[in-house]
Amino acid sequence: MSGNCYEKKHVLITGGAGFLGSNLAHALRAQNATVTVVDNFHPDYGGNEFNFTGLMGSTGFNLEKGNVTNQKLVCELAAEVDFVFHLAAQCSHVDSMSNPLLDLDFNCRGTLAVLEAVRLSPRKPVYVYAGTRAIIGAPLQLPATESTLPNPVDIYGVNKLAAEHYGSVYARVYRVPVVSLRITNCFGPRHQMKSGKYGILNWFVSLALQGKPIKVFGTGEQLRDYLFVDDAIEAFLKAGRFGLQLKGQEVTCPKAQLAGTKNPFAVFNVGSGKGIPFVSIAQKIAEKAGSKLEQVAWPADRESIETGDFISDGTTTQAGLGWCASTSLDQGLEKTFAFYREHLKKYL
Amino acid sequence: MSGNCYEKKHVLITGGAGFLGSNLAHALRAQNATVTVVDNFHPDYGGNEFNFTGLMGSTGFNLEKGNVTNQKLVCELAAEVDFVFHLAAQCSHVDSMSNPLLDLDFNCRGTLAVLEAVRLSPRKPVYVYAGTRAIIGAPLQLPATESTLPNPVDIYGVNKLAAEHYGSVYARVYRVPVVSLRITNCFGPRHQMKSGKYGILNWFVSLALQGKPIKVFGTGEQLRDYLFVDDAIEAFLKAGRFGLQLKGQEVTCPKAQLAGTKNPFAVFNVGSGKGIPFVSIAQKIAEKAGSKLEQVAWPADRESIETGDFISDGTTTQAGLGWCASTSLDQGLEKTFAFYREHLKKYL
Repeated sequence: MSGNCYEKKHVLITGGAGFLGSNLAHALRAQNATVTVVDNFHPDYGGNEFNFTGLMGSTGFNLEKGNVTNQKLVCELAAEVDFVFHLAAQCSHVDSMSNPLLDLDFNCRGTLAVLEAVRLSPRKPVYVYAGTRAIIGAPLQLPATESTLPNPVDIYGVNKLAAEHYGSVYARVYRVPVVSLRITNCFGPRHQMKSGKYGILNWFVSLALQGKPIKVFGTGEQLRDYLFVDDAIEAFLKAGRFGLQLKGQEVTCPKAQLAGTKNPFAVFNVGSGKGIPFVSIAQKIAEKAGSKLEQVAWPADRESIETGDFISDGTTTQAGLGWCASTSLDQGLEKTFAFYREHLKKYL
Repeated sequence: MSGNCYEKKHVLITGGAGFLGSNLAHALRAQNATVTVVDNFHPDYGGNEFNFTGLMGSTGFNLEKGNVTNQKLVCELAAEVDFVFHLAAQCSHVDSMSNPLLDLDFNCRGTLAVLEAVRLSPRKPVYVYAGTRAIIGAPLQLPATESTLPNPVDIYGVNKLAAEHYGSVYARVYRVPVVSLRITNCFGPRHQMKSGKYGILNWFVSLALQGKPIKVFGTGEQLRDYLFVDDAIEAFLKAGRFGLQLKGQEVTCPKAQLAGTKNPFAVFNVGSGKGIPFVSIAQKIAEKAGSKLEQVAWPADRESIETGDFISDGTTTQAGLGWCASTSLDQGLEKTFAFYREHLKKYL
């Protein structure tokens, strides 16, 4: 399959006013898709109308304010689309521990509602799920593949894992084409900058641009796999295309996930494949803004859900999606700083 | 550790009026534990006051009617106990597909409520979870070990997996001692006999004793790992004792689950380790009652969530709990028939 599979197609993005969702909306509009976004603009998360600068009010873009747990609403929205990108989520590790039921509601009940809507849609849309490296949690193997035994360390990770499995069940039982992307630590423009509860690199950029000190917990030597948002969006676009291949066919999934089964379901890691010490990127960010690092002790609520080193194995993704990350860390940081030097106030 | 660890201890059993729960209540009373049962007596599941014949009204036994999703209630109950055996569940595979939100409520929200109650209890109880082979689903490896990559095929299996992971998170973050047992197809006395939605062997015994034909879907050649309830209860008792060893200690878990981590968490398979063709045990049951088998086509709602062959690997359980199944299939069936020849009407 080649060419633009989104041309004149209708796409629903849940959580589409947030970081990944709004970047995806821009990318899909650039491919001439009609885009409908549903977002609840929950004040703790990243939904922001400013993210739609250049889209709002234009033909081919619709914004619906509402919750994905509203079954009637998501059924109405999914009835008319060819693709559903399900990105709406509670995305703070720390909040998932202090309020596990809220996380359950957003990440499990919300996903079940969206999958029901996809199942019932007469258009039989492709469903792409925004998974996370938190599904793997504290990795029992490095680099982590799609077959590494999950070991989530917080309620967020457990519920995102469950939500991914809901997709595999719907693929098996109802033949819904499902692709899940396990995204590593992603950063870049259009991310909220008001809280460090999630999206730590963006938070550090926020602090640096405000001239505030950047606090690193412990030695900061843990390895992380950082991904620039443009690369993540490219993976989403390729995942939707892959979902079309799965649709209506008896295909064998990438062996990494479900050996021997023939369901229209696939999981792909989406990361850089490189392990970078956390402290080194914090140092880069501080230097760019003439700010400085402070080493402080780990707060208990963070240390207890720290995963240790994480690196994502991209072999299956390269083979299945033809995707690998192409933006260097320095390029990504440069673009991030450039965006927020101009727009920081819109995200605080 | 030897001797009776339950003597004069207080134990809470959620879902304690059902099949496994009530058998466990009898076993714990026989060990001179004080037993409190909480059960919602939902009409679709197995809660049955007749299961408490010989216990009801006696010293050392308390019955509380209520839902485990009632956070206040379970906090009050867990505040006073040394062990919590969490068995309350939605347990029908088929119902989890027709009503995923009900399954989510019982199996995820209910488990989070019980874990919160355990965490907040000043008695720091040991927590034992009734997991299931459905966590493994369609096994990617046979026999399935505790490290086999889960591949649940229905919403029930996904939510039971999530609930098991909640336990590992609470063990890691809050040092709650958690033991999860992945129980295979269990049968025996005190199981509901009114529905074939779950507990197929008991259902066949019910049909046979009523002189009704027994329907086998397809060829019935799929292998299953059958477990007599007395053996399962012995595993629960040993799991509680194992939880005491985990409690307050930095122990290394059985390597099967969490290599290299030191959390008070363990998972054990609980099965016979033997793969028996489904049709052969159906034949045995029919013969015992002079009934007969009918082969019929798979109904779509069953076939789509059929796991294929399943056999449980007991190596880790033998090493960690010193447990293996000891009742033969014939002995188990004999005891089951003997019980229901006397009491069937109480379970219809």
